[in-house]
This record gives sequence, structure tokens and C-alpha cells, in this order.
Amino acid sequence: MTGTPMGSLTVIGLGPGPDRWLTPEVADVVAHSTDLVGYGPYLDRIPHSAFHRRHGSDNRVELSRARLALDLAVSGRRVALVSGGDPGVFAMASALFEALESGGDPAWAEVPVRVCPGVSAMLAAAARVGAPLGHDFCVLSLSDNLKPWDLVLKRLRLAAEGDFVIALYNPISKARPWQLGAALDTLRTLKAPATPVVLARAVGRHDEDVTITTLADCDPATADMRTLVLIGSSQTRLLPKGGDGDVWVYTPRSYTAVGDR
Amino acid sequence: MTGTPMGSLTVIGLGPGPDRWLTPEVADVVAHSTDLVGYGPYLDRIPHSAFHRRHGSDNRVELSRARLALDLAVSGRRVALVSGGDPGVFAMASALFEALESGGDPAWAEVPVRVCPGVSAMLAAAARVGAPLGHDFCVLSLSDNLKPWDLVLKRLRLAAEGDFVIALYNPISKARPWQLGAALDTLRTLKAPATPVVLARAVGRHDEDVTITTLADCDPATADMRTLVLIGSSQTRLLPKGGDGDVWVYTPRSYTAVGDR
Repeated sequence: MTGTPMGSLTVIGLGPGPDRWLTPEVADVVAHSTDLVGYGPYLDRIPHSAFHRRHGSDNRVELSRARLALDLAVSGRRVALVSGGDPGVFAMASALFEALESGGDPAWAEVPVRVCPGVSAMLAAAARVGAPLGHDFCVLSLSDNLKPWDLVLKRLRLAAEGDFVIALYNPISKARPWQLGAALDTLRTLKAPATPVVLARAVGRHDEDVTITTLADCDPATADMRTLVLIGSSQTRLLPKGGDGDVWVYTPRSYTAVGDR
Repeated sequence: MTGTPMGSLTVIGLGPGPDRWLTPEVADVVAHSTDLVGYGPYLDRIPHSAFHRRHGSDNRVELSRARLALDLAVSGRRVALVSGGDPGVFAMASALFEALESGGDPAWAEVPVRVCPGVSAMLAAAARVGAPLGHDFCVLSLSDNLKPWDLVLKRLRLAAEGDFVIALYNPISKARPWQLGAALDTLRTLKAPATPVVLARAVGRHDEDVTITTLADCDPATADMRTLVLIGSSQTRLLPKGGDGDVWVYTPRSYTAVGDR
């Protein structure tokens, strides 16, 4: 210890995109931080200011990013560790605790840490199309970078057996081009072809692109790394909107066909 | 049709409690609404104003509340249909689409409807204790008002078999006093006794009460209808905080014991 006063570390989520989904708490943390640490494209969403030092990094270096944030906090800086969406769902909060647990500088244990929730991508995607997550659901990352693919398939099978609605994060990337197709193929053996599927890309942003399709017709090439995939349960339904031929997607609260209620 | 101009209906979520988790979008919707429709305690969280007519109702009348909101919109009012947390997770958005689908006034189909996401209770509870939802998870309502209890048990068994983290909404109420105990008993036959369990009551509010315990020790009487229950996977871990004997709860991103990484 050098006598430098200890800083702090706050893990924040910016929400899926526009400022209208950024909580006042997170806006306040950003305003009072000296250092912003995160994936470059997320940091780019925060207006530049002379008061912030920015530490942008590439994708897939979450652990070193967390360590940098801890080092900065130990050196006295007020650090915001920035995620998109919610920081606790396949994002930086777990990476931070992994870094803390794996050790490094013993002073890390003294850093005051706080996690601030945000609107997660699945909630924004669901709201955009209606209420597909209105009944029991499962949330999975399709990335097999950090878990065996067999575990992904097992969980998909169990989620289908339980007739959960399924939300898929990280469905596809240049380095993982086949996983979404394989996941859909597995689900096609277990669920009805007409099951509604939503591919919600960049919801709330200028390049938003939302496709409502079926399990039979879903083309994995329509998705990219910014797409959130929602797959209905047997109860998930389409409801025509007034006028324009568009539809809502929703899952009723009760587990009975609407006609039987 | 009487010639009255059509109003609008926006389904909003206030977040789990304090204004710091209320999105700017939702604050804007509230400010521009003429009518607020919702469960009384949620409406009570919105400051009174001469510009709003308030239509508070009791719990468990979601469908009639949705119909009232539609009728008001048809009559030309700008209506906010208010949930706590996120409106799409066991909340009013699904009830609204059920009302729309079940029909009523044919003019309902012409109402412009929008759903605005919010910070859900599970995300706030998770952030409060660390990052328990940092890996694949399932979200279930324990209420058997609208689905058979056998389905709840089946889903709990499948979630345990898949080693998902589990988030339970509506764990207990005066009318449903035994369901959480029964759910925990089922999970105890399938998961390790030391599995971390979080009982997060009224997170972010003045009467917040958070208990971190284990599956073996969890006392269902500690929960009430305002409690969100989080049950870890085999990977979910406790990490001591610096100093005060308190702990973080988190689930690593990778599916391997930390020591093996």
C-alpha cells in the first residue's frame, strides 16, 4: 500500500441501446466516474467527456478487463466497468468476481464493489414484439467458448421437454458460425414446426432488425452476434395487430390454450 | 364509433422500486399519460399529479384491469398500464394481449399499443448479491393459480437436471402458503445441500431484506409475496467481501470449477 486513497469499482449495464433505457442510477455512476472500462462499442455509446479516461478493449478479454478495472480502483480511481444490457446476464459482473476470486493484487479485496442492474437485451426484445416471456422461460448462451457444446444441447433438450420459452444469447459469431443452426435442428426434433421464433437484432438502435418466423422456417443466417433469439413454448401465440398485417408475439400467463379458458 | 379520437395504451414497468431504476422512457410515458391503470401499490409509487386519473385495482384482477385500460384508450385517453419490474415477466403485458385476443369491444383492435421494458426484479436481486445469473438460468413463477402444480414440479426437476440457476417469482402468498416449501423439498432431492440460495425481498426499497443461505438451510417462512428466490447451479459460489464478513454470490461464466481453469 502506497497511501493512495482507495477508489471504487461499479459494474454497470447501459441497457440494450438507446439512452431511454439507461437507468438514472447508471447515468449517475457514469457522471461520477473517472475511468470507463469496457468493450469498445459499449464505451462508444457514452458521450466523450474531458472528465473520463476511457479504457476500451476488444471482445473476449473480459478477465483482463476486470483486472484492469480492479487495478485502477486500487490506484484511487472511481471506475465504471461497462456492459451493454444488464451486467449480470452473460456480461461483466461474473467476469469481475472471477478475477477477484482468482486473486492478483491482495489490495483488490479492499476495493468497494457495487453492481447496478440494467434492462437486459431479452427484456427489450420481448417488449418490442409483445410479451413472449410472459410465462416460465429459460435463458441460455449458445457460446461454447466456456462450456461444452454437449451441455448446451442437453439444456436445450430439457428446456424443450419442460416446454419453457427459450431466450438465446450469443447465438452466432464469425468464430462460431454453426451453433445456432445445430441448436435449431435439435429443437426441431422436439417442438412443433409452427413454434414462433423471434430474431431480434440490435433492438432499440438505428439498425434494429426484428424477424418473426417459425421454428420450421427460421434461417440461422438471419442472425448475427447482436441478435437475441426467442423461441416460444407450445403456448406462445401470434396475435394480429390492427391494420398493418404485423403481429404481436405473446405467451399467456396460464398454461391452457386460450380457447379452453 | 362516436367520432372521439382514439387514445393509446402503453404497458410500462417501473422497475423493482426506487426511481433510480425507472427508465427515462417510462418516466416520459408517465408524464404524458392521462390515465394510470394498475395494481394499487405500484400506482402508489408514482407521485400524485393533477394531470393523471388513477385507476388502482387489487391483485389478481389482471384481465379486467387490461380491459379497463383498453376501454379508456378507445375513449380517447392516453393510458399507461403499470407493472412493477418489467411488464413482460409475469406481469401485465401478457394479460393485455390475452384481453385483446379474447375480444370485447371491436374497437380495441384499433388501439395503438406499445410495451416498454423495465429492470426486472430478478436482475435487481442478482445485482444486489453479485452475479448469480451470470450463466444459463431458468425463470419460473411458483404460482399454481394459472398452471398445474405438477407442471411446476416437472419444470423444477428439469431445471435441476440441466443444472440451470433458478429464479422463482411469486414464491409464496397467504393463499399459497406451501408451494415454496414443496419446491425446495423437490430441489433438495436433486441438488447439493450447500447450493447457495438467495431470498431477496423488496430489493432497492426501504424495507429491503436479503438473506443468503443454502438449499439445506433455507426456511420458506423467510419469504413472502415480495420475495424473489434465486437458487444456484452446481457452479454458483460464495466469495467473501473484504472486511465485513459479508459475501458475494456469483455464477462463473464457464462451466468448470474455478480451481480447474
